[in-house]
Amino acid sequence: MENPLVLGHESAGVITGVGAAVTNLKTGDRVAIEPGFPCRTCDFCRSGRYNLCDFMRFAATPPIDGTLCTYYTVPEDFAYKLPDTVSMTEGALIEPLSIAVHTVKLAQVAMGHNVLVMGAGPIGLLCCTVARSFGASFVACADVADNRVRFAKEYAAHESYLMKAISPQENAREITSLFGIEQGFDAVIDATGATPAISCGIHALRKGAVFVQAGLGASEIPFPIEQICSKEAVFKGTFRYGAGDYKLAVELLRSRKVSVDTLITDTYSFAHAEQAFNNVVGRNGIKTIILGPGVNLDDDILTC
Amino acid sequence: MENPLVLGHESAGVITGVGAAVTNLKTGDRVAIEPGFPCRTCDFCRSGRYNLCDFMRFAATPPIDGTLCTYYTVPEDFAYKLPDTVSMTEGALIEPLSIAVHTVKLAQVAMGHNVLVMGAGPIGLLCCTVARSFGASFVACADVADNRVRFAKEYAAHESYLMKAISPQENAREITSLFGIEQGFDAVIDATGATPAISCGIHALRKGAVFVQAGLGASEIPFPIEQICSKEAVFKGTFRYGAGDYKLAVELLRSRKVSVDTLITDTYSFAHAEQAFNNVVGRNGIKTIILGPGVNLDDDILTC
Amino acid sequence: MENPLVLGHESAGVITGVGAAVTNLKTGDRVAIEPGFPCRTCDFCRSGRYNLCDFMRFAATPPIDGTLCTYYTVPEDFAYKLPDTVSMTEGALIEPLSIAVHTVKLAQVAMGHNVLVMGAGPIGLLCCTVARSFGASFVACADVADNRVRFAKEYAAHESYLMKAISPQENAREITSLFGIEQGFDAVIDATGATPAISCGIHALRKGAVFVQAGLGASEIPFPIEQICSKEAVFKGTFRYGAGDYKLAVELLRSRKVSVDTLITDTYSFAHAEQAFNNVVGRNGIKTIILGPGVNLDDDILTC
Amino acid sequence: MENPLVLGHESAGVITGVGAAVTNLKTGDRVAIEPGFPCRTCDFCRSGRYNLCDFMRFAATPPIDGTLCTYYTVPEDFAYKLPDTVSMTEGALIEPLSIAVHTVKLAQVAMGHNVLVMGAGPIGLLCCTVARSFGASFVACADVADNRVRFAKEYAAHESYLMKAISPQENAREITSLFGIEQGFDAVIDATGATPAISCGIHALRKGAVFVQAGLGASEIPFPIEQICSKEAVFKGTFRYGAGDYKLAVELLRSRKVSVDTLITDTYSFAHAEQAFNNVVGRNGIKTIILGPGVNLDDDILTC
Repeated sequence: MENPLVLGHESAGVITGVGAAVTNLKTGDRVAIEPGFPCRTCDFCRSGRYNLCDFMRFAATPPIDGTLCTYYTVPEDFAYKLPDTVSMTEGALIEPLSIAVHTVKLAQVAMGHNVLVMGAGPIGLLCCTVARSFGASFVACADVADNRVRFAKEYAAHESYLMKAISPQENAREITSLFGIEQGFDAVIDATGATPAISCGIHALRKGAVFVQAGLGASEIPFPIEQICSKEAVFKGTFRYGAGDYKLAVELLRSRKVSVDTLITDTYSFAHAEQAFNNVVGRNGIKTIILGPGVNLDDDILTC
Repeated sequence: MENPLVLGHESAGVITGVGAAVTNLKTGDRVAIEPGFPCRTCDFCRSGRYNLCDFMRFAATPPIDGTLCTYYTVPEDFAYKLPDTVSMTEGALIEPLSIAVHTVKLAQVAMGHNVLVMGAGPIGLLCCTVARSFGASFVACADVADNRVRFAKEYAAHESYLMKAISPQENAREITSLFGIEQGFDAVIDATGATPAISCGIHALRKGAVFVQAGLGASEIPFPIEQICSKEAVFKGTFRYGAGDYKLAVELLRSRKVSVDTLITDTYSFAHAEQAFNNVVGRNGIKTIILGPGVNLDDDILTC
Repeated sequence: MENPLVLGHESAGVITGVGAAVTNLKTGDRVAIEPGFPCRTCDFCRSGRYNLCDFMRFAATPPIDGTLCTYYTVPEDFAYKLPDTVSMTEGALIEPLSIAVHTVKLAQVAMGHNVLVMGAGPIGLLCCTVARSFGASFVACADVADNRVRFAKEYAAHESYLMKAISPQENAREITSLFGIEQGFDAVIDATGATPAISCGIHALRKGAVFVQAGLGASEIPFPIEQICSKEAVFKGTFRYGAGDYKLAVELLRSRKVSVDTLITDTYSFAHAEQAFNNVVGRNGIKTIILGPGVNLDDDILTC
Repeated sequence: MENPLVLGHESAGVITGVGAAVTNLKTGDRVAIEPGFPCRTCDFCRSGRYNLCDFMRFAATPPIDGTLCTYYTVPEDFAYKLPDTVSMTEGALIEPLSIAVHTVKLAQVAMGHNVLVMGAGPIGLLCCTVARSFGASFVACADVADNRVRFAKEYAAHESYLMKAISPQENAREITSLFGIEQGFDAVIDATGATPAISCGIHALRKGAVFVQAGLGASEIPFPIEQICSKEAVFKGTFRYGAGDYKLAVELLRSRKVSVDTLITDTYSFAHAEQAFNNVVGRNGIKTIILGPGVNLDDDILTC
């Protein structure tokens, strides 16, 4: 096997030891792990955008090994103490939750906004619940799969929409008219990376609104640029998470403004980790938990 | 002829009469005319983004007649008194200059930035000079026409670049390497609407940077979305101009931070207006001036 | 009586007639009235800050009569249709609620913030509830009156604090230590105008945080400027409300994110309006409602 | 002598050796030294506001020794390579220039603004020139000393004003009326810390404008709070400099948008450093240069 790599970047664990300079954590603390460590000295790091650091060492991104292991070393400030009321399982989901936090922040979602989320996979669902916690008055979620559409509404969206076999423009018109948002949405988040979803979302934008691309599919897509121009809209890319995102994700769980429990559909022991990965593809589950080696649920946990 | 329309939206004139409530202007004042009048009551107008007003009445945009006429009525606050040192000819060019001001503002150009402008037509050239006046440390301009590339550097750009018959990525790499901006530009403005230019500009972006689309060509184009995502970049549309833009354009001329005289390559009398329009296409001129009816240069002027 | 003035600027009513150009409202609609009409043409109005308009005509601000009358004329876009689930009484309270919305926006309160509100009068209480609805993780309210302190915690604050007869610095230290906010608050709002409260609030600021002055007492006060400088903090004035504030206040009531019912402690008929004013001073009530002439509760209502 | 401390925090030097991991600097490079090193791991550092770091080690701030010495060790990213066209003397002045950059950024000075700077000492003068380089249309400088007022206008201000023995309000009225800025200034910077100057500056603010307090005198002052409230103005503290400020200061010198040479009024050899300090007080000089030990001008330089 050439250049094998340990997987895993969504994880929580228990501190087994700390360095001499560590002051905020101690052995036994339950923590969520932010899995990318920036250089701290480049212009991006110094100006508060460390997720753009060129020298980032990110777990499970070659050649950096991931977190799916017995012991993992992490700088003090990238380990976030979990409140007593937040389980290890929830802790492992703080990574994707932080992606949603970062995305919803970039979408400038605020009190009273109407938000459309394209895609009801894990990131799309988390964006729905985070957008709602940020004060969105109305959150709609669209997907191509009927079961996902149903779950989105049960989980966090005010309404959801099953994409039809019509053009993106027509789907956009259906969505805005069905939900009475004729002026268009204040923010649209795409969590699919699929061209028709992106196009539909852009057509559903209000003038002056923000679109955030959270998922990524092809490197180049047909793009309705005229919509962006005539609406003076803003189309933003998003890359991982940055300053304050993990902390806010922990706070959303602590305050119960967001719940992630229902997203966990499968749990495997460490010994069955390979099976866990194999089963992710082609199933209806949302998030899978892999328990740490030799431990039980709520002890040492990694997800994938 | 069905639904004929008077053309003209870049214009300056002399006040021939004012209403009873007018306090800031008087007969004889030389003014530049902002040619779109918003409703003043919708949410966009009230929140300071009147260029997005759904009820805008914009000159020469059907069914609203344009300014190419002897007398034109304008609300007091859409007529901007010209300083004595600003000519009527310059006054007529305040319209495209305001587009450049609006664009450069959206591009968040600030002291010390490196800026790339795609296209050396009137708007591209004006974006170069405005970006420089806003404090950009380095402004590069790229175009496909050799004479335009040369003029851009004479006029306002620190450097200019003749696009080569290579891929957008390769052109981007040439530009950033030629000018020593390997990290990419802080802001890129496209003033062409041409797909290869847009793609090249996006590839030349720095991480976290801003792209503003000032020109518009096709309604849908192939778009290197992966670049926007992995760089966490922002792609903005721009639509006309809004609060403060005309005023700032006047100030840029008054303070001589920007000069537009050299952009005027042709002048026609009102009687030859049709010829002026016919000659715009396919020539090397930049901006054409049409003098008002029965007047001489520096008296009553419209451009197209 | 010299220059008598009709009072009243917090009011809701029923539309009894509309002009020919009105499209969004009709006779019989229940509306909240935004009581200040700006000029719509000055730089402040055009740039979205109409609350700063020099030509504002504001109800009950000399020489403009107020809303405490049988019929009142209002521009269409300054009358906000009440959702069916929002009562006329609540509608009358949208004016002070809009002040709180404007204040909390200026304080940049966002998800996860710790907020301190000085003063548990009507505006302070409304700031507490709005800050919480904006996602504040922790809202503390401080006051000098024991009953107000108790009510603040019942109504909206997570915790409240009875100011002690010690220095502002010492009160600040007590508050931050009592509530475990040793780093200081992300935002502090003063709704008292009282010097000791302002000083205490400034001492309780986190580095880099925002203080908003919502109430106003003396024109000049002793000010702990060194705190602002060494913390690189921001001290903001606030003046009435502006673009989007009324609309958001209506939405907060519609969505039940904010409740104002419990703030109404007294109700008077129109005939007893004078008595209503006389009784406001020196009592423990919070907000007083005056019913419109010849009408019953939930029909036509004004507060003062 | 108890707890003696080496002074010096405005300094430039020549690299005499670099660590193994250093890639951007080498022996012989001429650099300006940013004299405060933050922890890089706290929330302030990670979010791009490292100047607020609680664990900052700042030169000549007890117990950290300053830069007035033969050799000084500095992290790679806090040493800024000087362009060939920027002298060592200018390099030493990059520290106060960075303070001006930070201040003018906080004042949100942009193209077309009218700016008032209170105080024509080194920081006030540098704020004038930086504000002008940022595009301010009009920069006025006020001071109580006639020679300073004259120098301010020669150096960088469009106009300057000698404070009169009248009230702050009256001085403000004189300034705004003298310079035709009746609406008030878009930004006011105080570089004196003196109560009458602060008060005058606040009275000279435009509605909605920004005041930045760059100097600091007393810990508590009488403050015209009503002005801040009724104008919905913003009063900001400023503390040192942060991300990007040093870099931008270097760029302002490289591009010749700012010149600092004329501010250097005195030069001393290292052996006469004590005399240099003694002579600063009570003289008319602006900035004093102390040459490094055993070196000549343009070799190794420290200012105080």
